[in-house]
Amino acid sequence: MTEPRREPWLLTPGPLTTSRTVKEAMLRDWGSRDAEFIKLNARVRERLVELAGGQGTHVCVPLQGSGTFIVEAMLGTLVPPSGKVAILVNGAYGKRMVRICEYLRRPCVALETAEDTPVSAATLDASLDADAAITHVVVVQCETTSGVLNPVEEIAAVTARHHRSLLVDAMSAFGALPLEAGRVPYDALVASSNKCLEGVPGVGFAIIRQTALEAARGNAHALSFDLHDQWVAMEKTGQWRFTPPTHVLAALDQALVEHAAEGGTAGRGARYAKNCRILVDGLRRLGFETLLPDALQAPIIVTVRIPGKLTVADSFRIGCIGRLGEDEMRGALENIKQILGEMGVTSCTPAHR
Amino acid sequence: MTEPRREPWLLTPGPLTTSRTVKEAMLRDWGSRDAEFIKLNARVRERLVELAGGQGTHVCVPLQGSGTFIVEAMLGTLVPPSGKVAILVNGAYGKRMVRICEYLRRPCVALETAEDTPVSAATLDASLDADAAITHVVVVQCETTSGVLNPVEEIAAVTARHHRSLLVDAMSAFGALPLEAGRVPYDALVASSNKCLEGVPGVGFAIIRQTALEAARGNAHALSFDLHDQWVAMEKTGQWRFTPPTHVLAALDQALVEHAAEGGTAGRGARYAKNCRILVDGLRRLGFETLLPDALQAPIIVTVRIPGKLTVADSFRIGCIGRLGEDEMRGALENIKQILGEMGVTSCTPAHR
Repeated sequence: MTEPRREPWLLTPGPLTTSRTVKEAMLRDWGSRDAEFIKLNARVRERLVELAGGQGTHVCVPLQGSGTFIVEAMLGTLVPPSGKVAILVNGAYGKRMVRICEYLRRPCVALETAEDTPVSAATLDASLDADAAITHVVVVQCETTSGVLNPVEEIAAVTARHHRSLLVDAMSAFGALPLEAGRVPYDALVASSNKCLEGVPGVGFAIIRQTALEAARGNAHALSFDLHDQWVAMEKTGQWRFTPPTHVLAALDQALVEHAAEGGTAGRGARYAKNCRILVDGLRRLGFETLLPDALQAPIIVTVRIPGKLTVADSFRIGCIGRLGEDEMRGALENIKQILGEMGVTSCTPAHR
Repeated sequence: MTEPRREPWLLTPGPLTTSRTVKEAMLRDWGSRDAEFIKLNARVRERLVELAGGQGTHVCVPLQGSGTFIVEAMLGTLVPPSGKVAILVNGAYGKRMVRICEYLRRPCVALETAEDTPVSAATLDASLDADAAITHVVVVQCETTSGVLNPVEEIAAVTARHHRSLLVDAMSAFGALPLEAGRVPYDALVASSNKCLEGVPGVGFAIIRQTALEAARGNAHALSFDLHDQWVAMEKTGQWRFTPPTHVLAALDQALVEHAAEGGTAGRGARYAKNCRILVDGLRRLGFETLLPDALQAPIIVTVRIPGKLTVADSFRIGCIGRLGEDEMRGALENIKQILGEMGVTSCTPAHR
């Protein structure tokens, strides 16, 4: 066994710092069609449905690849060629979904707000009133571009009132911020292994209302992204259609055990909230300004204005997720303080607007 | 550090048994936009181009996901909507490409031979003569369905003579069987981390002639599968567009070091050939019949007829790739012999045809 190297803390929105035990779960090889791996896969899928509060209504369809892959697969599978999508946009991830719809040749309308402003349920309400062709609404729970928390519950209520289908990109929030299918009606939610669940990157998953998925046969634009086909095959055999990232899934299995041990979504969310509090308070004590007021700040990633600069673009971001806690947050602040001193920065206040 | 469990040998065509050191490379977390990871990624890409003999003509575009993902991305990116594909089919992987073309809405013609028969350069020649609309030819180097080796060099020569573009699925052969771009003219080749390179699953890659890739802008049917976009972005920043499976890439980086230490493609291929020889000879001594004569057998996976059964479908397969050698092959044969005894099987000969 080689000695593990000393690792930097990853103060990023993912890939992030994972526990040693999560990584150690990758120290064996799995036959992807073996009984033991089939059991592991079933366990992971079941647990993810539970975390989404989707028992009895929703199913879990995992997919190889990055978060964007499962977002694209969700849109391609659930929005039929005759559909039209309203995308609530206040950052890069919303914009990327607009680009995906262009590839898919699905008509779409972007309902945009500024990066430091939550998306608007009122604007959505008006759009759905005005445009009966819109079949699906898509929202990002936490836009990692700025770290802003979007009002998914309000968006869900408006969407339901108009009898449209809601799709949620919960990538950077799932496992830390609640989104219970029973309380917030959504047809699909997507997330990935390597954000708040603290697994390693390489697999995403969709939690999909079974009736919506059953109706989605034949929609998909790509064989690999056909979540209906993926689901039907997996239900039949317990196996993946195409080689799964076995080691990544073994790590996710272990990560879910550790997530439960920390108290599930509530416990994980509480640690991140504390991390975020320490970070924001400390940065403000140093004179920095955060982009967002506390009420809009999700405990995932903090955007900080660069001293002396004016625009949103002139900012940097610090993640507060991953296997990091109070000590690492204080350590990060200590390092920032020291480096500011070395750089001779005397004021961290951005220019007045 | 938990003790690693005793693992079974994976006598499969992948995911397969990897070395301990390859798995240990996954024991750290990487920021996917950090300088060190960018270097690792560049190193891996460069080495893969070298292994393909594509220096100066071809580039490496890696992609998240399974082998099928990179096959689909190759077809979607390189075949324009106005193109037409001839697919040489003698097994499940050829058939899957036909299915992908249906999703892509690219016209395609399947040139089919039986599973125990190599695809035919003569049939291809006639088809290309007869159908000027065909722009691309696709062939699987080693069809893992049966383990048959296809005559890629002949196919390449015919394709070149007709001035069409050749795409090769080298998934289960790359790193063990040579396919030098300088000698076998192809526009693209795809393979994955978890076959003969002996990495873990989760990433595929395409080796693409740069001029063909440059001409492929705007073709792709999916944002995530747009290899032109992926390449342009990676050339610009050294980074992946969307979160890469960092641990899987670190394992591949280590796997490539071990591949070179074994003598590259020649060394790796020699070990597999020896494994295959031991396996085939031993099985025949037990009375089994292999599906393929030795001349058609690639040293990747061996298909064996089930005693007493008649059809190709009544067969089982044993892989001879992965971090396994002579001892494991002999061990496997020993186990088979013992189990045959326990089952009271007295003859391993299939029914006469």
